[in-house]
Amino acid sequence: MLRAIFFDIDDTLYSTSEFSEVARSNAVGAMIEAGLSLPREELLQELDEVIREFSTNYEHHFDKLLLRLPKRFYRGVNPAVVVAAGVIAYHETKIRQLAPYEDAIEVLRLLSKTTLLLGIITEGLEVKQAEKLVRMRITPYLSPNAIFISNQLGISKPNPKIYQRACSDLNIKPSETMYVGDNPRHDIDPPNSIGMITVRMRRGGKHHNDEGQTRPHKEVQNFWDLLDWLRQEFQIQA
Amino acid sequence: MLRAIFFDIDDTLYSTSEFSEVARSNAVGAMIEAGLSLPREELLQELDEVIREFSTNYEHHFDKLLLRLPKRFYRGVNPAVVVAAGVIAYHETKIRQLAPYEDAIEVLRLLSKTTLLLGIITEGLEVKQAEKLVRMRITPYLSPNAIFISNQLGISKPNPKIYQRACSDLNIKPSETMYVGDNPRHDIDPPNSIGMITVRMRRGGKHHNDEGQTRPHKEVQNFWDLLDWLRQEFQIQA
Repeated sequence: MLRAIFFDIDDTLYSTSEFSEVARSNAVGAMIEAGLSLPREELLQELDEVIREFSTNYEHHFDKLLLRLPKRFYRGVNPAVVVAAGVIAYHETKIRQLAPYEDAIEVLRLLSKTTLLLGIITEGLEVKQAEKLVRMRITPYLSPNAIFISNQLGISKPNPKIYQRACSDLNIKPSETMYVGDNPRHDIDPPNSIGMITVRMRRGGKHHNDEGQTRPHKEVQNFWDLLDWLRQEFQIQA
Repeated sequence: MLRAIFFDIDDTLYSTSEFSEVARSNAVGAMIEAGLSLPREELLQELDEVIREFSTNYEHHFDKLLLRLPKRFYRGVNPAVVVAAGVIAYHETKIRQLAPYEDAIEVLRLLSKTTLLLGIITEGLEVKQAEKLVRMRITPYLSPNAIFISNQLGISKPNPKIYQRACSDLNIKPSETMYVGDNPRHDIDPPNSIGMITVRMRRGGKHHNDEGQTRPHKEVQNFWDLLDWLRQEFQIQA
């Protein structure tokens, strides 16, 4: 019997890759408008390097970007204004574009009317990941005590303990629990290893062509496929 | 001859006190909606305490607020979701409400068509203060090289060196330069001490009833009053 489904956030509930591309492009565009005289493509490449070098969870990418560039490219302009323009444009993109896949929100809404417990197991900083959930307006469909964020637990994917912790906190057996994610090595292999039911969401993103060591129980391309399988295989009446 | 006017930002170009009140109230309201079970007034008082204890420039007020409250007030809810709800509501208030006084933007626009150099001398963190300028959309009226932010210079108000630095960077004598601000001890006494022309903007805010050691050359209640005085006393044709 299936009692709970946990979801990954990034590139599962929304297209992280697409969002990041638009947000970075808008930020760089605003920095150019604020007085930074370099071609957009060059700035985007430099920003990608900054993000790779300082990690996506670092909070001052645009400051670092500016530090790397010779001052002649913003001569006579206060660099803080250039950075602020980038930060504001990035944030405004969050408001407009950080939205879940339409089928994700629809299927979560349908599943929330069943007896299934719905939750999140995600890798990242607590407030940053929680912000995504609030902006996507999906918290009403989740059990408030079933949101597990790696940085809050002190356990990072791919350590299977993060999956174990979610199950034990909610007092559910792994075999009665499903995990849905896009990354085979982080979202499929570890929950498989503790006996959870695993679903690979394969609709793009940077892990689209990755392979893990084990196979998921099911591979789907969207949430409607997932819902069909839940109905057929687990007699979920949604 | 008057060659340049520098402006303070907070409680001079916009009502910082009013904005903060609305932003904090919206943030606390969103935290309650996200599952924090305490009366709004009590949370606002606690938040005020946090801000006093950790300074307005600290970046994690809402995390600290939650840490101070017994867990029973958000039992069963992930605290990161409560914090994220507060952060998002605060940011959305910035977008909607961080706007200059109408007369400020109008008068800046008129003055920007004269030969006067217009700039900013402000106390605070560089990107935070620059963000206010960009959000208020007033950077087009300012000389891009005339924005001076304390944290970027290593000099804090009320040290008169911050005013001296602005004048020397732009190669203008203090006696040809005006400063407009709301705080008598930070915005009037120090520029007076180096021979600048000083204007006290007195239209509310936390320094409304403060007194400094010296008198401003002029006290005004809004930017139209300032413009009248500039026309009469300095023959500015705006």
